[in-house]
Amino acid sequence: MKYIRYLIMFTLSALCGAATDVTTVEKWGVFELEFKGPAEGNPFLEVRFGAVFTDGASTVVVPGFYDGDGVYKVRFSPGSTGDWRYETKSNRWELTGKLGKFTATPPGSGNHGPVHVQNTFHFAYADGTPFKQIGTTIYNWTDTPEELQEETLRTLAAAPFNKARMLLTPQPTPYQNRFSPARWPYAGSPPHAWDYARFNPDYFRHIDARVVQLRELGIEADVILFNPYGKFGFETMDAAGDERYVRYVVARLGAYRNIWWSLANEYDFLRTKTDDDWNRLGTLVQQCDPHQHLRSIHNGSIIFDHNKPWITHVSMQNGAAVEEPGRAEMYRGVWRKPVVYDEVKYEGVTQYRWGNLTGQEMVHRFWSGTVAGTYVGHGDYFSTVTEDTWTSFGGKLSGQSAPRLAFLRTILEQSPAQGIDPIDKWQEVNTGGVPGLYYLTYFGHSTPTEWSLKLFKNGVSDGQRYQAEIIDTWAMTITPVEGEFVTKKLDNYHYVDVAGRVVKLSGKPGIAVRVRRIGQDGKPAANVLPND
Amino acid sequence: MKYIRYLIMFTLSALCGAATDVTTVEKWGVFELEFKGPAEGNPFLEVRFGAVFTDGASTVVVPGFYDGDGVYKVRFSPGSTGDWRYETKSNRWELTGKLGKFTATPPGSGNHGPVHVQNTFHFAYADGTPFKQIGTTIYNWTDTPEELQEETLRTLAAAPFNKARMLLTPQPTPYQNRFSPARWPYAGSPPHAWDYARFNPDYFRHIDARVVQLRELGIEADVILFNPYGKFGFETMDAAGDERYVRYVVARLGAYRNIWWSLANEYDFLRTKTDDDWNRLGTLVQQCDPHQHLRSIHNGSIIFDHNKPWITHVSMQNGAAVEEPGRAEMYRGVWRKPVVYDEVKYEGVTQYRWGNLTGQEMVHRFWSGTVAGTYVGHGDYFSTVTEDTWTSFGGKLSGQSAPRLAFLRTILEQSPAQGIDPIDKWQEVNTGGVPGLYYLTYFGHSTPTEWSLKLFKNGVSDGQRYQAEIIDTWAMTITPVEGEFVTKKLDNYHYVDVAGRVVKLSGKPGIAVRVRRIGQDGKPAANVLPND
Repeated sequence: MKYIRYLIMFTLSALCGAATDVTTVEKWGVFELEFKGPAEGNPFLEVRFGAVFTDGASTVVVPGFYDGDGVYKVRFSPGSTGDWRYETKSNRWELTGKLGKFTATPPGSGNHGPVHVQNTFHFAYADGTPFKQIGTTIYNWTDTPEELQEETLRTLAAAPFNKARMLLTPQPTPYQNRFSPARWPYAGSPPHAWDYARFNPDYFRHIDARVVQLRELGIEADVILFNPYGKFGFETMDAAGDERYVRYVVARLGAYRNIWWSLANEYDFLRTKTDDDWNRLGTLVQQCDPHQHLRSIHNGSIIFDHNKPWITHVSMQNGAAVEEPGRAEMYRGVWRKPVVYDEVKYEGVTQYRWGNLTGQEMVHRFWSGTVAGTYVGHGDYFSTVTEDTWTSFGGKLSGQSAPRLAFLRTILEQSPAQGIDPIDKWQEVNTGGVPGLYYLTYFGHSTPTEWSLKLFKNGVSDGQRYQAEIIDTWAMTITPVEGEFVTKKLDNYHYVDVAGRVVKLSGKPGIAVRVRRIGQDGKPAANVLPND
Repeated sequence: MKYIRYLIMFTLSALCGAATDVTTVEKWGVFELEFKGPAEGNPFLEVRFGAVFTDGASTVVVPGFYDGDGVYKVRFSPGSTGDWRYETKSNRWELTGKLGKFTATPPGSGNHGPVHVQNTFHFAYADGTPFKQIGTTIYNWTDTPEELQEETLRTLAAAPFNKARMLLTPQPTPYQNRFSPARWPYAGSPPHAWDYARFNPDYFRHIDARVVQLRELGIEADVILFNPYGKFGFETMDAAGDERYVRYVVARLGAYRNIWWSLANEYDFLRTKTDDDWNRLGTLVQQCDPHQHLRSIHNGSIIFDHNKPWITHVSMQNGAAVEEPGRAEMYRGVWRKPVVYDEVKYEGVTQYRWGNLTGQEMVHRFWSGTVAGTYVGHGDYFSTVTEDTWTSFGGKLSGQSAPRLAFLRTILEQSPAQGIDPIDKWQEVNTGGVPGLYYLTYFGHSTPTEWSLKLFKNGVSDGQRYQAEIIDTWAMTITPVEGEFVTKKLDNYHYVDVAGRVVKLSGKPGIAVRVRRIGQDGKPAANVLPND
């Protein structure tokens, strides 16, 4: 808090003076300032540095960071186009009162801005483009040999995932007996001889670069600040060490638009921190991040109080909760925030029961979460000995789910922008969509041999026209049902097809039906209600 | 708040003086004081009255109430045996400084004290006796003709229920076209001409009496303070009216040990109050009830934030949540408080889909909730026209579930005192119990034809001896499996029977298996771990 307050105490009057530098950066890109400053003593502790940016309409106080060798940086991601001016602030005169300006230009192709919460339960990029989360997990990928990291990026480029969960500090695993991480987050040496008051800029420069590479692949980096696995000491620093770490990480990474903050993985397995500690640190992230990225905390077996105001969405571990849609909906209603089932067990073959899902079951869990109005994360864990798995270290995918998740992603990208919500909560749990417009019914493990139209009354009236398609979630086929369905009222709750048409199904598991309203142009509607 | 503070301002010095009255009352019984005082003006608004009770060890400030005709009362339920002294407090001299004493004697048969939360997810009476909730719902029973109320009491006397949910203020229904409630909570006349500053003591004396009758039947009275159905205006009073009502009700009823406070039914259907209003009123109940009864709030379709400190347990409406145990567990973990699924749809035949459960399905929902470590409530709604149903008005039960719930109650009363908890959360959702001691597995709608022992590792080691029984939840039979099961380790997670015994099941739905550890005496253990 002190640091932020310190910066705010400066006046903005100097911003009217002459600027010293002019350049351009994309809206939601990264504008980086670099200055030489003191290198003596411990700059991480002793030098406060940052800048105030304004475009006249808004003023943003942005903390900077020390990048080693007497170099100080501040990174800012402008949220609007046009001219911006800045003035640096510091407790050292040589870093104080540096003035400048730049111009934020319209975002380039593929730049939709940071992701935020939209419509209570969903996500969208800042430019309004819906973000339909298909996540994966690659905890330690940035600690592996360079060659493996490059392979991971190649795999991601061909994979369906648009969010990746990754640890920010290393954890030891059997696979690491074959290599030692090339960099560590603090000055010192492994396993325990760290100076928690001196970050290792090289370590974080590497993270910076990887985050940018994910960004260029269209992947959100769900960066996990604390984890209980490390046993290197990063998880048991004192309160001052934790705060310094949070401030440093947020200052370094916060300007990358694809950052999400995950405060901890399996927070409850880290016995040295209490709920109060997590709330203090989560609130700190909220306060010191001028870019206001998404914030969550991920559980082991004890569920956090996600009503806390610093939490933007729920990052849930509970595989049982996505075994069927009726369960998946339940947490959603509790917190009235987006729910991402980030850990639902992993597709794999392993001695651990949390890593033994078949590809079919992984795909099933994504679909169960989807029709319940929630989002799901993937893991791939095919190793019983060294644990050199995708989900631990990246590399190659071994499972069969990824192509089916790509198929699901296509379905989602064709779904209404506002998101899929339960149509008739606590009643017909297998159907999500938008009333009177779009319905996605998923039969899960059941194997019906026929289907007929039956829509809950909300948004429906007599004489509406719908088109239906049969989706095989495993075979990745979409088979249109010939002709149209026309609604007529059945009873106080439902509408059915006026002709009573019955459609044959294959009798296989993993079948879904997509029902879309037909607009005046005779085509199925997606994002806008057709004119009746 | 003002009232309570006013009372506290008095000193206790006078309590050392001579007492004016001596009597006895059971611990957890009701000690009632009555005084004549001013009848002019509006005593409900103008006279503050109460008493301070002390047994030397604890001091309890108890608000009193005006009972009409110049009569003032204060009711206190002593929580410990021995000698108690009191001194009245008032803003009128004639009601001030009345001294007295009484002796609290040991509780009589059937008096276990008030129910409180125990072991995070469960309930117990104050004397430690477990309270295994089997609830029912009789919303308007106190508004019906006397004869019907008497029939309701006779029905309850023969029914399995140990908690009844009831509205404290009337709601109109089609059935009421045949009669008008004999009493109303306020002075004035229906439907809307009420003086919200003048309670009708006769109305509340009637409630007092009915609560006492429930108590004598061993039934907790889950009294619902506000409801959205009335349309008589009691649900749309101003903040001062709400507060006056809460204080009056708590002062009158709080000394009855079987009281539970339910702040509202379907709180979210009452559009004139916000979450802040409910939290203010819930906190008021917490603050002005010296007897600290259980407190909850019941939802319609929007789930309340049950983390609020004034809420002691979750009173949930969500029928879908008890369709299977995996769902039922989910809310439990969210709030780490007892979950009572008070409304899971009603057994009945009606035009409404919330009242169409078969008896089998009602029993199934109780069992699903039970093995998930939660509690369930019953409703009985057999009427399509006048709605003169058990759940609205009492009278007779029409459904088939009640005898099966009596059977379940017996099972619960034989279960461990600490309560049934999920044995292997998020993994084997159909089994609840106490690790290494007691296991209750419920197969629900599935119809297995055989069963064999498989216990999660917690609390289990090689060579433990268990006895098994097959329970038919609908036929109400308990069939012992001959012989014993002896454990041996199967893998990292489970133990099985050393002899690999397989038990035939009937292949019917609604079957459960009860597995109990055999103690040194050769009998199945229930409440204490046998010596190994």
